[in-house]
Amino acid sequence: MQNFTYQNPTRIIFGAGQIAALDAEVPQSARVLVTYGGGSILSNTVLAQVRTALGRREVSEFGGIEPNPAYETLMQAVALARAKDVDFLLAVGGGSVIDGTKFIAAALKFEGEPWDILARQAVVSDAMPFGSVLTLPAAGSEMNSGGVISHRAKGDKLAFNSAVTYPAFSILDPTTTFSLPPRQIANGVVDAFVHVVEQYLTYPVDAKVQDRFAEGLLVTLVEIGPRALAEPLDYDVRANLMWAATLALNGLIGAGVPQDWSTHMIGHEITALHGLDHAQTLAIVLPAMLTRCREGKRAKLLQYAERVWNITGGSEDERITGGIAATRAFFEQMTIGTRLSDYRIDGSSIATLVAKLEEHGMTGLGERGDVTPEVSREVLQLAV
Amino acid sequence: MQNFTYQNPTRIIFGAGQIAALDAEVPQSARVLVTYGGGSILSNTVLAQVRTALGRREVSEFGGIEPNPAYETLMQAVALARAKDVDFLLAVGGGSVIDGTKFIAAALKFEGEPWDILARQAVVSDAMPFGSVLTLPAAGSEMNSGGVISHRAKGDKLAFNSAVTYPAFSILDPTTTFSLPPRQIANGVVDAFVHVVEQYLTYPVDAKVQDRFAEGLLVTLVEIGPRALAEPLDYDVRANLMWAATLALNGLIGAGVPQDWSTHMIGHEITALHGLDHAQTLAIVLPAMLTRCREGKRAKLLQYAERVWNITGGSEDERITGGIAATRAFFEQMTIGTRLSDYRIDGSSIATLVAKLEEHGMTGLGERGDVTPEVSREVLQLAV
Repeated sequence: MQNFTYQNPTRIIFGAGQIAALDAEVPQSARVLVTYGGGSILSNTVLAQVRTALGRREVSEFGGIEPNPAYETLMQAVALARAKDVDFLLAVGGGSVIDGTKFIAAALKFEGEPWDILARQAVVSDAMPFGSVLTLPAAGSEMNSGGVISHRAKGDKLAFNSAVTYPAFSILDPTTTFSLPPRQIANGVVDAFVHVVEQYLTYPVDAKVQDRFAEGLLVTLVEIGPRALAEPLDYDVRANLMWAATLALNGLIGAGVPQDWSTHMIGHEITALHGLDHAQTLAIVLPAMLTRCREGKRAKLLQYAERVWNITGGSEDERITGGIAATRAFFEQMTIGTRLSDYRIDGSSIATLVAKLEEHGMTGLGERGDVTPEVSREVLQLAV
Repeated sequence: MQNFTYQNPTRIIFGAGQIAALDAEVPQSARVLVTYGGGSILSNTVLAQVRTALGRREVSEFGGIEPNPAYETLMQAVALARAKDVDFLLAVGGGSVIDGTKFIAAALKFEGEPWDILARQAVVSDAMPFGSVLTLPAAGSEMNSGGVISHRAKGDKLAFNSAVTYPAFSILDPTTTFSLPPRQIANGVVDAFVHVVEQYLTYPVDAKVQDRFAEGLLVTLVEIGPRALAEPLDYDVRANLMWAATLALNGLIGAGVPQDWSTHMIGHEITALHGLDHAQTLAIVLPAMLTRCREGKRAKLLQYAERVWNITGGSEDERITGGIAATRAFFEQMTIGTRLSDYRIDGSSIATLVAKLEEHGMTGLGERGDVTPEVSREVLQLAV
């Protein structure tokens, strides 16, 4: 096991009816900016529940934070927060809204050009306090301190992280997911699955508990993913999905082990260039990445095939191939295409994608830093 | 899944050489009281490393906190802390030292008779900040807010808990366990194992992730327990044991599920009356408790037999019996006797033990509150 530091201060308030707990979690005297996106939040009762729970507090609202939240949009929220002199932010939505709210929280206390937080990885040493009401199980943003922000004008999609951008609390009410479109549920399952894989499918360091926890999350997602699509009103299925997605990226399973994240970094470029959903890009890149890097990941791929997919027969190479094929089949069972061609993208954009990776410094990806631009190019070619 | 609130603010600093991190974690101006027990801490280099890391800070020391820490001893530490005007406590040891230090931290800020924190469950609303350097993987006290304190004069062993008695940080260096006697390692493995069981072997609530995490911890403890005895200098074995024991009782696997704790409560009375090690009492009570309550725990016992012990053949009753027998055999493999008679205790003290449970209000134990004094008596008779 590798040495590590782990701390996660976010308070999780989980279950049906918990939005009412906002009244106890948000300071009574707070001037609140509620941030949200669009879609189901406007048609279901979540926003109404939030407004009721906030009672007589001074509340402003900023809607329209889009998937892959845009710097340009978020800076409008920063301006509104300043104009209203707010002192607490409340994100109501999924990973995009929460990621975006983390950026707003940081930008409000940042001296200088806030885009430098992404482009130059400027240190974020202060942020406005914020909480979240999660409505989409996927990103894990509700219990971590990271965010991914896109700059539309520049065509960039970049990540940031800091010790001061953990939500103070996050309310996870599985019933808020009942009205989500199937596509968002499918995306959420795949996103959470790949988050686990990026922290698990590297090389062994004899971290037995981390491995068992990661495998437990993967097995759970395989078990409930199709049911989350087929039985959208099953509370326990949605509850297990919500908690699994949170634990997939709250730092716990990644503590003390090598991490990969090359699939995410390549996926970000596909989203930035072609506008695909984040999870679609992961479903495209991961099977190709595992195929290209199967020797480096050999020992963990064998463990993965056995413990997650119960593949115990055949040669080692057959078991590895079987595990990768099962991964692809699972994504497709979740109705998400796993090849660029499924989205009418051919190989002609690969050169641009690789150039963007190089522009963003993504030249030594993976758990060993050996996923060079050339390897990324081969991965993308395998993904056509 | 049941509704829950989960928050754990403790910062974990894990790995070989991490005691030096104390210098960054303890305020530079702190007046520190270092608390410890006896035994290996005096013969190994841990205390010397702690003194070095604390540098020029004003440091007092209080040694001699015993296993099953005594109220009488801890109140001496409270007096010393007041005399020295300390403002930070640092526990160096295992669960007894950390539990005791939580009580010292609470007592220092408590108005009235501190024993009321245990006897009357008085609310602890403030505590002196403290950290820990863990040297014994077992209790999980390093990442939770609970403590168990004994009153020697009264023959009581009681628990308390509060939101303000989490360690600010805990340093987990597996090499500090290399010099532990085999008995303490064996006790630690059994203690951690039973902590998981008390939060897992109840009735199903379709909490898939919690179940998988609990099973992952149990499988890991079964795998490494014997190796921790046989290969005392294997770093990874000790690292996995240390992290597993912490995660066994940091609140995570118990969030959103029913909990039992009847084995612990009965075990506490055996320790208070007969002086057995805490883990010895758990190894005695658990197999008897599972036998007595096998119908109420039927569904989870079947899951336990299959997922932890790979018992898939035979009738349901045979699999349940097999799982309980495997549990007993594991404890005995860890060199810990599982019957009262192994410790030269016969049935004559059962009446006293049951009377003590009643005196302490332990009249409706277990996940359904149906472990009455009569059931506890039957469990103890099965344990003779």
